[in-house]
Amino acid sequence: MAVDVGGTQIRAAIYPSEGITPLVLERTTTQPREPDGRGETPMERLNWLIASLWEHERPPKVLVVAAPSPVNPQGVILEAPNIPGWVNFPLKVELQKRFDVPIAVGNDANLAALGEWKFGAGQGHHHLIYLTISTGIGGGVIINDNLLLGAHGLAGELGHVTVLPEGPLCGCGHKGHLEAVASGTAIARWVEEQLAQGRSSTLETNRPITSKQVALAAKEGDALAREALERAAYFIGQALADFLHIFNPSIIVLGGGVAQSGALLFESLRQSLHTHIMAPGFLEDLKIVHAAFGDEAGLIGALALGRSLYPPENTR
Amino acid sequence: MAVDVGGTQIRAAIYPSEGITPLVLERTTTQPREPDGRGETPMERLNWLIASLWEHERPPKVLVVAAPSPVNPQGVILEAPNIPGWVNFPLKVELQKRFDVPIAVGNDANLAALGEWKFGAGQGHHHLIYLTISTGIGGGVIINDNLLLGAHGLAGELGHVTVLPEGPLCGCGHKGHLEAVASGTAIARWVEEQLAQGRSSTLETNRPITSKQVALAAKEGDALAREALERAAYFIGQALADFLHIFNPSIIVLGGGVAQSGALLFESLRQSLHTHIMAPGFLEDLKIVHAAFGDEAGLIGALALGRSLYPPENTR
Repeated sequence: MAVDVGGTQIRAAIYPSEGITPLVLERTTTQPREPDGRGETPMERLNWLIASLWEHERPPKVLVVAAPSPVNPQGVILEAPNIPGWVNFPLKVELQKRFDVPIAVGNDANLAALGEWKFGAGQGHHHLIYLTISTGIGGGVIINDNLLLGAHGLAGELGHVTVLPEGPLCGCGHKGHLEAVASGTAIARWVEEQLAQGRSSTLETNRPITSKQVALAAKEGDALAREALERAAYFIGQALADFLHIFNPSIIVLGGGVAQSGALLFESLRQSLHTHIMAPGFLEDLKIVHAAFGDEAGLIGALALGRSLYPPENTR
Repeated sequence: MAVDVGGTQIRAAIYPSEGITPLVLERTTTQPREPDGRGETPMERLNWLIASLWEHERPPKVLVVAAPSPVNPQGVILEAPNIPGWVNFPLKVELQKRFDVPIAVGNDANLAALGEWKFGAGQGHHHLIYLTISTGIGGGVIINDNLLLGAHGLAGELGHVTVLPEGPLCGCGHKGHLEAVASGTAIARWVEEQLAQGRSSTLETNRPITSKQVALAAKEGDALAREALERAAYFIGQALADFLHIFNPSIIVLGGGVAQSGALLFESLRQSLHTHIMAPGFLEDLKIVHAAFGDEAGLIGALALGRSLYPPENTR
């Protein structure tokens, strides 16, 4: 069973021992507006969803949970800014109280990287960088066919590198991180700021502004919207050049809603990467591709981890 | 035999099958001012030095060369800015023409990281970041007891990440890299600029200024010198925070002459790291230490690679 806990939704799916088509997939809201009998706290609702799938086929051989936070090897959530109360939260221990099955907890972007490498756009590569650009910016890195986890499992926080010192405040409380400058939230905020300063745009009538609206307006030729995407792409390209100098991967996989904003973002990003790269060798044979998986990236990643922990031949 | 090719000196040493004390160590200048019978080009002088040691004991079992450039797996020097003519230079092929022995070529900072991990300040750690701060800034990373090389062997260029967009020009031609802001060269240049703008300092009479002089003046309380070191340390700390978010290592090893500038630099760096870190978990159990090896870091690193390629039991 794979579970993906987000700030808005919790998804859970049971997979067969081969393939990536779920036998069953259910979801519920993480933070209900009104009581619905599925529990009140995110933990209660997570328990409810898992329990509701538990006996669907037969009990799963392993339960893997993708969480929107750095996670240590003991399955403790360090800090999930979008989930109230999940700070130093022992998720694995809490789950183990209820479900008698091997349990693993991982960071959602790290797991998504693993999923893209094993089942998606990065198959066959040994050195991969995955960057997901949506509300926030997350990352995951495969090195020599292994997921980069670091000494305490916290590695791969690619959205939290400083790209603009003294720049906008990040959700983590620091200034000028990539996430604070180029995420969907950051793009929308920048447009709001520009409008407040008197610039004109077709977006004026669309408040509050979302990055999706910015992408649509850019496609229709709105100058401010185009500038907003180009600016985000510039900083993403700058950070990707740093990541190439650091990791020298053979593929960059871009996931998340903002990465789907269209050709303008993708081309601006590629141009910025070429501007910032220190030597052509780092671009040799380099592939830059869209992720194969969208909303299901976390689930597929959890599946990938589950399969590596309990290969099919042992679980049948 | 281990060889370290720098812009100023070439060092070569023969090591026994155990231990890190060389049986013999010789050096020569890389670019002679006057003919001295040891060859004119860096390649000729490298050949001369190796040949002069060749029969010292018995021919070596393996020859490993550390070079000041990204190096691909075929032993091609991508670009060594301090060595004329070494651009896309097939060093391994050139050496193999003369010396009939297994040959490996690696980046000097990557090899130094390997040496510190195997024989020096990083022993026993599984996840290590090595940063050498001298004329330039180089790096090397150990992940899960393996040297990070990437798809084409070019990984670990930690000095070439952007810390200050639109900042000073780097030796590699790009703006605002860590190396361009915090290397010894950058520190000296910043002081020169400040003096040119009319600031006063005890360094005024010491032109041209070197980072060593800046470190001495800082120790004696010179305000401009202190500011120069604090500024460099600030950006090194900012970059190290990024590297911790990316790699989550258990140790940072700082090498190179500038890292020896004294307590002010080290403490400012630690302070900046704490300011920039996104969550305390990344600092848990983290060690920040000086490198064990100085000028001999490249040689010891080459030795470490040689030993891993040809363990003692096979070379006796």
